[in-house]
Amino acid sequence: MGRWEPGAGGRLRDAALALYLERGFEQTMVADIAERAGVTARTFFRYFADKREVLFDAAAELEEKALAALEAAPAMASPLDLVMAALETTTDIIGYDRELVRKRHAVIAANAELQERELIKLARKSAALADGLRRRGVGDTEAGLAAETASAVYRVAFQRWVDATEELDLRDALRETFAQLRTLAAPR
Amino acid sequence: MGRWEPGAGGRLRDAALALYLERGFEQTMVADIAERAGVTARTFFRYFADKREVLFDAAAELEEKALAALEAAPAMASPLDLVMAALETTTDIIGYDRELVRKRHAVIAANAELQERELIKLARKSAALADGLRRRGVGDTEAGLAAETASAVYRVAFQRWVDATEELDLRDALRETFAQLRTLAAPR
Repeated sequence: MGRWEPGAGGRLRDAALALYLERGFEQTMVADIAERAGVTARTFFRYFADKREVLFDAAAELEEKALAALEAAPAMASPLDLVMAALETTTDIIGYDRELVRKRHAVIAANAELQERELIKLARKSAALADGLRRRGVGDTEAGLAAETASAVYRVAFQRWVDATEELDLRDALRETFAQLRTLAAPR
Repeated sequence: MGRWEPGAGGRLRDAALALYLERGFEQTMVADIAERAGVTARTFFRYFADKREVLFDAAAELEEKALAALEAAPAMASPLDLVMAALETTTDIIGYDRELVRKRHAVIAANAELQERELIKLARKSAALADGLRRRGVGDTEAGLAAETASAVYRVAFQRWVDATEELDLRDALRETFAQLRTLAAPR
């Protein structure tokens, strides 16, 4: 999110989110978004494949960055630590603008089709991370478990960060939630 | 799955799964399923709301049972242990027939719409478990984290059980995967 800011891409994203919240996602047309951003529809399509991609284009960037980090990480860490560290490297892509992320969440929460797409993207990201671990020689079940657990921690931390009324850094939220998982999973 | 076995419901379920695998989900009509099971379409609709519900009706039963177990559990356990124990109580509903579950998985894997529905059902189940923990006084983030993590463990264990070529009890797969998570999450 925001990799084109502060150019036409950033203006288009802001315009789209504002319109989705004002009128609803279904009721907003690409022409409306372009008009609000002061550009042509043709310019819109230089940045986004369709009006849905305004909400989801950052997902591919996040996944790529996490996978690259996973690949480059030293072998000494446990598979769960590896995925957590990989996910942590992505926090600077979206963590800088909580207001933008909140708007995106509100738009998605209001539309069943967008929620489905979000779930699918998250599931695919988790599967891609598990495959990344398998390529590093981690066993099948352990890779799936580490990726799914790290994704769960990430989603919970992300939601906490979105909902928080206080100042909160996304990276700190992620670290705190991971520490909380360690406590929860400790044998007693 | 299988609560109506060995009556008309069980026969309808077997017939539906066989046809979905033979012809594809989209290409199978309720009339075909009823015919294969030797009953009328009217009988089909006494058991299932539509042809999709043949695949998903057990989900509600699983969720109810897990929530009831969560509510009835003693307070001493950690939130993660509570959800794991609640999920463990549901293994006898589906754990007795791996072949049936494998067929269901194969049908869902072949159809994008069914995969989305499966993801949504799993997400809702996790959210319901988190709410169950909150009703027991568990803090907001901790409840979400315990439910999401337990759901991740459950999904991975379930997949392992479905894929395993050896004899394997679903409950044992769940316990082993949970033990694996404890090891993965242990501080080092």
